[in-house]
Amino acid sequence: MKTAVIMAAGMGTRLEERTKDMPKGFLKIGSVPIIEESIIKLLNVGIEKIFIGTGYLSEHFDRLKDFYPVELIKSEKFETTSSMYTLYNMRDRIKDDFLLLESDLMYDQKGLNYLLEAKENDVILASGKTNSGDEVYIETDSNGFLVNMSKKSDDLGSINGELVGITKVSYNTFKEMCVYAEKAFETNPKIDYETVLVGITEELHYSVKVVEDYTWCEIDDESHLKRANELIYPEILRKEAGRKSVKRNILLNPGPATTTDTVKYAQVVPDICPREKEFADLVRKVQKDMVDIVHGGDEYASVFFAGSGTAIMDAVINSVVPGDGKLCIIVNGAYGSRMVKIAEAYSIDHMVIDFGFGGKIDLEKVESEIAKDKEIKCVAVVHHETTTGILNPVDRIADLKAKYNFSFVVDGISTYAGLPINIKESKIDFLLSTSNKCIQGMAGLSFAICKIDELIKTKDFPVRSFYLNLYNQYIHFEEKGQWQFTPPVQILYALDQAVKEYYAEGETARYERYDACWRKYREELPKLGFNFLHDAEEDSKVLLTIMEPDHPNYSFNRMHDYLYERGFTIYPGKVGNKNTFRLSNIGDVHPEDIENFIKVLKQYVDKELV
Amino acid sequence: MKTAVIMAAGMGTRLEERTKDMPKGFLKIGSVPIIEESIIKLLNVGIEKIFIGTGYLSEHFDRLKDFYPVELIKSEKFETTSSMYTLYNMRDRIKDDFLLLESDLMYDQKGLNYLLEAKENDVILASGKTNSGDEVYIETDSNGFLVNMSKKSDDLGSINGELVGITKVSYNTFKEMCVYAEKAFETNPKIDYETVLVGITEELHYSVKVVEDYTWCEIDDESHLKRANELIYPEILRKEAGRKSVKRNILLNPGPATTTDTVKYAQVVPDICPREKEFADLVRKVQKDMVDIVHGGDEYASVFFAGSGTAIMDAVINSVVPGDGKLCIIVNGAYGSRMVKIAEAYSIDHMVIDFGFGGKIDLEKVESEIAKDKEIKCVAVVHHETTTGILNPVDRIADLKAKYNFSFVVDGISTYAGLPINIKESKIDFLLSTSNKCIQGMAGLSFAICKIDELIKTKDFPVRSFYLNLYNQYIHFEEKGQWQFTPPVQILYALDQAVKEYYAEGETARYERYDACWRKYREELPKLGFNFLHDAEEDSKVLLTIMEPDHPNYSFNRMHDYLYERGFTIYPGKVGNKNTFRLSNIGDVHPEDIENFIKVLKQYVDKELV
Repeated sequence: MKTAVIMAAGMGTRLEERTKDMPKGFLKIGSVPIIEESIIKLLNVGIEKIFIGTGYLSEHFDRLKDFYPVELIKSEKFETTSSMYTLYNMRDRIKDDFLLLESDLMYDQKGLNYLLEAKENDVILASGKTNSGDEVYIETDSNGFLVNMSKKSDDLGSINGELVGITKVSYNTFKEMCVYAEKAFETNPKIDYETVLVGITEELHYSVKVVEDYTWCEIDDESHLKRANELIYPEILRKEAGRKSVKRNILLNPGPATTTDTVKYAQVVPDICPREKEFADLVRKVQKDMVDIVHGGDEYASVFFAGSGTAIMDAVINSVVPGDGKLCIIVNGAYGSRMVKIAEAYSIDHMVIDFGFGGKIDLEKVESEIAKDKEIKCVAVVHHETTTGILNPVDRIADLKAKYNFSFVVDGISTYAGLPINIKESKIDFLLSTSNKCIQGMAGLSFAICKIDELIKTKDFPVRSFYLNLYNQYIHFEEKGQWQFTPPVQILYALDQAVKEYYAEGETARYERYDACWRKYREELPKLGFNFLHDAEEDSKVLLTIMEPDHPNYSFNRMHDYLYERGFTIYPGKVGNKNTFRLSNIGDVHPEDIENFIKVLKQYVDKELV
Repeated sequence: MKTAVIMAAGMGTRLEERTKDMPKGFLKIGSVPIIEESIIKLLNVGIEKIFIGTGYLSEHFDRLKDFYPVELIKSEKFETTSSMYTLYNMRDRIKDDFLLLESDLMYDQKGLNYLLEAKENDVILASGKTNSGDEVYIETDSNGFLVNMSKKSDDLGSINGELVGITKVSYNTFKEMCVYAEKAFETNPKIDYETVLVGITEELHYSVKVVEDYTWCEIDDESHLKRANELIYPEILRKEAGRKSVKRNILLNPGPATTTDTVKYAQVVPDICPREKEFADLVRKVQKDMVDIVHGGDEYASVFFAGSGTAIMDAVINSVVPGDGKLCIIVNGAYGSRMVKIAEAYSIDHMVIDFGFGGKIDLEKVESEIAKDKEIKCVAVVHHETTTGILNPVDRIADLKAKYNFSFVVDGISTYAGLPINIKESKIDFLLSTSNKCIQGMAGLSFAICKIDELIKTKDFPVRSFYLNLYNQYIHFEEKGQWQFTPPVQILYALDQAVKEYYAEGETARYERYDACWRKYREELPKLGFNFLHDAEEDSKVLLTIMEPDHPNYSFNRMHDYLYERGFTIYPGKVGNKNTFRLSNIGDVHPEDIENFIKVLKQYVDKELV
């Protein structure tokens, strides 16, 4: 079958303002109008020619001809007729069997395959219960042939499915439909094609293919649009992505983390110039999402950079210290030390309170040091030191703000969206993170959630970097709706999908999943002879440092390679003279994955460390 | 059909060293072993259970059980038997119809659909001519049923196809095969399954599905492996990607540019920790590709950053000027001015030779200014000023190096891989570009191709930025084989694919394509009343600045929106007080696309500017 017919004449009046200037097929749910998504899906399954029956605002469809093998056939009577007339109006051009669809339908591409693969030439696609509020119910006989269709379930003897609105129509049937319709138009010019199908079914035996969990929706009103956006479209993406799945690796390194297939595929979008308003709208949405995830509200803004986590750390450190002020950096691992190196690179006046790699932060010492130095205008600390897995007491440090009046920088790179954070309650002015850690997106973007009044103050601070200046990056996007410099376009789309998945899972559930993974490590690893650097109460619960076993056969590289070959990636240690390695549990990793990991690790231990 | 059987017992002796420690199904062509790609494809089309007949190094297959619904059945006689025995050995476990494959087969997933969709229960998949050197030819009768198969074409009455090695086998046929084989083993324990199929065909009428342009290969020796890598695998990717194609937008902005679907889909890879050797190998390959594209050789190295084009401009400008030296910046547009701003941000001693936006560089003036100032150690210029579309005389400026001894920085952001560049002949020490312009990859990565001895000199220059220091970024990767900071992992995979497509097209052909697009603009736009800012001889041929028409109805935004809705993105101008807009022709854009653009632009002109 090489032909499809899309009926697109309707006025979409129930969508009011939205369809004032365009037919409803041009509404966008993803980044492409509904009708174009449909055309692309039809081409994907081998359709070569598409007739579109137009009417309302028909000139809007013209541009489709530049890109797709479509032919437009306008019904001049669209205001006084319905779908059957739109179809009937194409009778001189249609010469073959075809797939029949409506222009406002969003659907899983697989539905087309069900019809194409069916042996019968006339097949109606039906789904299980949708509860959409606009159902057309189908009654079939015991052989699965159509008996009746109606919006009123009481009209039917039984309900065997719901009409999707994708139908395989043989050329013979089409001719029968036209004959039937010609008569019917005399009394009812607004007859729709479903009624005609029922009318001719006794002679023709129309087959019904019911797919119970088929995902689709029609878009007739605002509630449909909302449901499509929030529920149906993500589910279609998920199902379509799952059909060309990607080999699943379990990354136990502290990011970039394991991602879902849907996030991976979200990178594949039509090319767009990032100076377009459409892209700016996406960026604004994701920027707001980033603030919302830490419960920031209107007092906070996100500033995005193309770059790694270190890029945003560099940007914040070099941008938020006034020319006459001093930065205080609290250090107990490599990421604290990195902030010191950044301050050094820019000759920023700074002092360091160092507790040593893996050391516990002594709050009394922090307070006494800050109290001593009146020039401190800014304090920076790492929330979770991935050097060791220790979680630092951010809230307790924040409590010092009232007394000593400093702006507060927190590196939340490996905790943001993994551990619940309330940026207001934690009194954080600049919270840093990246797209590829607990938010579970792809690498290439880093960002800071900034308290706007503190951010605006930095306007008059020395500009120490060109590319990585926080205020300039912020104000350029705010004022122009465009990035100052080219953004990593596809990473933004993936992040948008990652945000949807974050909300679908929920803040608490994500934390509990990570926590459950961490508990598996804590419970099972000691049984295999692996012990931990820290006590459980110091743990971030997103990463553990493991002491290397004291066994003559042990080799990190051999263990790593054994596990890597089996799909698990572990990570070397970073604690001075202690022999350690690290295991993280962020990303799309579940307790079952940790169980599998433990199983494979046990195989290795039994083989090599006996 | 829910079952598949993979025969994987063989020793792969023709691949010698490569299969010493692993069965050949574990060879990798892309980022996943061949047999795993095959398993994923089987699952994609709905197979739920896979039996693998193992033998040689059978323990290697164990790990597949952790990820996939596979069952391993080992043949103890693998050294003295062949494929039929491996299959026969599974007779107690196979209870259904199944798809039969070999473990060393690379194939387009669509082949599985051909067999699953066929009405017959016993079908052999065949292709047209492969010229692989290892063909098994198939003879069929006039009804398409199998008559004979042989490696010797002379054995056959006719050649109707070549055996792919994917076969649909009904349970009844499988039983027949086992009965036949049991007898045959008495005289020939090494009988293969193809011979058995021919042996039973008279009774069973085995159907042959011939797909003329089917893409596949078996991997038995080094030449197969080379062919798979260079030819077959990219073609499979291309075909599989084309089946779920992405809406094609024509971006006429100066990058991020229009990309191919294969580059877009190349972002979708299994998650990998970028600290792994496997990823470092990819980075090294792509770094070398970047040098090779400008014919650099061993004296040059690529330094990569996660960031936009401005990130690499910042890194180079802030890194290559010695503490006691001066930078000379030649300016005739916004990108030259940006280099000045970077020098200012880092308080780098610099002087500017400014020819005004759109001004032509006067080489005599450049020489006299450089001659005057003995402190100049470094000269920077933009190759193609995308502000206006003017191409600057890089080679003529380079000629001054001999006399005045400076290091030479060229911003090739919008020319690299579009216009042929010979970095040695042009005496460039630092050439900048990004992943998303003429190389036609995705945005998020920028890089410099650096003359290594000049790069090493910068080691002792002041460190002016932490994240964006050129030498530190270079030496960290050189010494540790790891990025200093997290790379944009997926963008690298896309860039690797973009490089393959660059070489497939060829340096000259890409230039000629861009040139042909540019000529279309030059020829057609004046007919619609659009004139150019520059004369043709000054053109870069990758971007044009167009004077806005002096018509009361003209509005850039309305014109932009009209074109944008129809899939074409145009770009605003950037030339002081002149009213201009810009059109680029980089990316996967072809002369036909420019023709379509002109057509749509004409529609707009006819409608609005009459």
